[in-house]
Amino acid sequence: MYDNPERNLSSLSDFYEFTMANAYFNNGMKDTIGIYDAFFRKVPDNGGFAIFCGLDEIINYINNLHFSDDDIDYFKSKEMFSEEFLEYLRNFKFSGDIWSFPEGSVIFPSEPVITVRAPLIEAQILETMILICMNHQSLIATKTNRIVRASEGRSVMEFGARRAQGADASVLGARAAFIAGAPSTSNTLSSMKYGVPASGTMAHSWIQSFDSELEAFMTYAKTYPENCTLLVDTYDTLKQGIPNAIKVFKEVLEPKGYVGNIRIDSGDMAYLSKEARKLLDNAGFKDSKIVASNSLDEYKIQSLIKQNAKIDAYGVGERLITAKSEPVFGGVYKLVAIKDKESERLKPKIKVSENVEKITTPGFKEVYRIYDKESGKAEADYITIMDEKIDEEKPLVIFDPNFTWKMKRLENYKLRKMKVKVFENGKQIYKTPSLTKINEYCKKEVSSLWDEVKRFDQPHNYYVDLSHKLWDLKQKLILDVMGK
Amino acid sequence: MYDNPERNLSSLSDFYEFTMANAYFNNGMKDTIGIYDAFFRKVPDNGGFAIFCGLDEIINYINNLHFSDDDIDYFKSKEMFSEEFLEYLRNFKFSGDIWSFPEGSVIFPSEPVITVRAPLIEAQILETMILICMNHQSLIATKTNRIVRASEGRSVMEFGARRAQGADASVLGARAAFIAGAPSTSNTLSSMKYGVPASGTMAHSWIQSFDSELEAFMTYAKTYPENCTLLVDTYDTLKQGIPNAIKVFKEVLEPKGYVGNIRIDSGDMAYLSKEARKLLDNAGFKDSKIVASNSLDEYKIQSLIKQNAKIDAYGVGERLITAKSEPVFGGVYKLVAIKDKESERLKPKIKVSENVEKITTPGFKEVYRIYDKESGKAEADYITIMDEKIDEEKPLVIFDPNFTWKMKRLENYKLRKMKVKVFENGKQIYKTPSLTKINEYCKKEVSSLWDEVKRFDQPHNYYVDLSHKLWDLKQKLILDVMGK
Repeated sequence: MYDNPERNLSSLSDFYEFTMANAYFNNGMKDTIGIYDAFFRKVPDNGGFAIFCGLDEIINYINNLHFSDDDIDYFKSKEMFSEEFLEYLRNFKFSGDIWSFPEGSVIFPSEPVITVRAPLIEAQILETMILICMNHQSLIATKTNRIVRASEGRSVMEFGARRAQGADASVLGARAAFIAGAPSTSNTLSSMKYGVPASGTMAHSWIQSFDSELEAFMTYAKTYPENCTLLVDTYDTLKQGIPNAIKVFKEVLEPKGYVGNIRIDSGDMAYLSKEARKLLDNAGFKDSKIVASNSLDEYKIQSLIKQNAKIDAYGVGERLITAKSEPVFGGVYKLVAIKDKESERLKPKIKVSENVEKITTPGFKEVYRIYDKESGKAEADYITIMDEKIDEEKPLVIFDPNFTWKMKRLENYKLRKMKVKVFENGKQIYKTPSLTKINEYCKKEVSSLWDEVKRFDQPHNYYVDLSHKLWDLKQKLILDVMGK
Repeated sequence: MYDNPERNLSSLSDFYEFTMANAYFNNGMKDTIGIYDAFFRKVPDNGGFAIFCGLDEIINYINNLHFSDDDIDYFKSKEMFSEEFLEYLRNFKFSGDIWSFPEGSVIFPSEPVITVRAPLIEAQILETMILICMNHQSLIATKTNRIVRASEGRSVMEFGARRAQGADASVLGARAAFIAGAPSTSNTLSSMKYGVPASGTMAHSWIQSFDSELEAFMTYAKTYPENCTLLVDTYDTLKQGIPNAIKVFKEVLEPKGYVGNIRIDSGDMAYLSKEARKLLDNAGFKDSKIVASNSLDEYKIQSLIKQNAKIDAYGVGERLITAKSEPVFGGVYKLVAIKDKESERLKPKIKVSENVEKITTPGFKEVYRIYDKESGKAEADYITIMDEKIDEEKPLVIFDPNFTWKMKRLENYKLRKMKVKVFENGKQIYKTPSLTKINEYCKKEVSSLWDEVKRFDQPHNYYVDLSHKLWDLKQKLILDVMGK
């Protein structure tokens, strides 16, 4: 959605990014290099992990960045920006480096998911859109994966377009949902653009536009015999809708060798689905599937399964596409180091807060995931200063950065570097895999977690630890600031 | 955002709209005219009313509707659509009529906010985007108006871009927020596109990129003396941030005759703002304003005011731009009448449900707002069959459609037709007013409500009643359906 060269999103950035940029520019800091980390602090819905999405659109946005005459005229009209800065904007092109977790990765709080190394001005201008992409798409992927896990193998169809927060939210939300495990979407544009399989049944208006429900079903079944899911709740689900559907299955579909399905969109899903199953089975349609849709989410689906509802697939709408239970993924973007002009060395930077978990982790950093060699399961994430060496042959003792006496000794492990380099000197050097590949990768990622991390209720707190060197650096900077 | 001819959103429609359209087309219903109402059922956050937004982008979307070769190729690849239908799509243009409440209007559950009269196929293809625009933008306007009312005259600045659900959500959300009373946005693109005043202060990264906070403040104040709000919580708000800010106000701003402000973004806002006020006042900066930002919404702001916090303006982010407390505006789009092919007469249509409030109100309808002539306040909304005559000189007895014994006799009233005609035979005949005009209209709309409708806690249930004729029609159709 952000790859359209005619859709200029370059000014989609907080106004203060531009005022700060102008001030950097006019105060001799035009070329000062900074390092910024994008990370998040809390998994929505008190979950044990999140799924990262949004990198592809970040790449599209950055490749498209350019300030048009209209943009420049707007800034000029503000009478706050120097002519030289506007000229700089006119020729703006991203020139920095970006590292990122791949899309579909399992991510945890406090670890740098995206790292940007670029002149301060450039890095600041990117901030808003990097966060929009990461926050929105990771939110939907994380929520969808919860719903998919709750459905225990039954299909979860993304049906939410009409309740999405704008066009981008609907189309990119459907893409994120596919990555996280929803095999289809009702969103035609998302299907067209990203190849997400399109699915859909019929609206109540279809039924209403005929003189009778039966006529509406007949007409539909004759038009789409191979792909016929009839919506049975427009008037009376059990007394009229399902009997009519059965009649149509018998008269239109069966002779042609097709199997029809039904969709229930209101009423008590547990009760209606069980009654519907009986009616269908008794009529000889044991293969007809029952689709349910009506404000579903992971909790409702868990409850339906517990009640032994006879539902084969779920259409999930507003609660998925807006992540209704917690619609904000609080990703932030923080300066962690500055390159000293004279020494050319990186000076790590920290932001202290009265809130312990809001203190940033300084420095240019690498993130490793530690897998147990035997089980293949992820044991912990381990953040180090960039280029710190770890000898994988030796045992590794990790410790909780807040409660340092909580230690763990790892012996039979292997390390995986989580971030890939995406931009080098402003050039894209990473290619987004196909959507199917990202979906497969995501599935593998989730299956590498212990069940205790995946449960909804008080999941195990996965370790995200700092190397000894990094921990020392952080403590030193905190003391420096406090001592001032 | 949807007015860019190069951004083709024509396929942003649920896939079933196209399969139904193809089926209508191939079953002799290509020219059948239907009437559809868009309405909503429940005010988010249990509020007493909502604010309608989104019409301007619906207009843009419809004016831009066209199916490109790429669209057609996609549909062809599905092997479900007839050649004739694809040819029809290739030449698709909206040809119907649309009526709508103006943007910024106060709206209530169950009343038709938008009415579409068009061939079924066209009306169905529009459904998804009409709902996306209405649902998303009304949601944000309604939420913002709550926050603005809670702030009792203090400024509410929209700061949410980075947490918005996609680019459209950020830009159009900022526009909706302005309509509903937020006087500025941090979103540069929204400012550029819609003229919403841009505002912003500085990020923590600005402070961190200097060797000291004082140096960062000094540099900023020298660059923007006339517009200088310093962020004081990067290291220690009371012991360092505010003393440094005061130093800068004295040394840089005061000599030039400017007044500086501060922003607090973390910690206990009630305590910190009171202490900050004392520090500023004691230093002689009684005119310096205190801006607060940190997960604010109408409830937090009410609480801060109650605690006598010394905050002059609020920066409100994620909780506004996603309507976090209830992020779904459940607007629906229902068929209410079909034009009979032979008689050319409208046949009203109903959808019955086990859920009483989900039963639709049939027919082609008008919505009136009834104002008390003396107070000027809105007393009730009154829905009639289109062209029903009401003699304003005579008293009007209205009654609750569910509890019909609840009656109200109105004597000294005047009526206002709420819907304006927006499209006629596919041509736009209504021009969206300027954003400032819409904002003024919205303010007037809200002030026409009794305080009891506006309160957050169990607001008075505003009457939305049906005319006697319409009520009779609805009962008749319900009985017809039940009798079948």
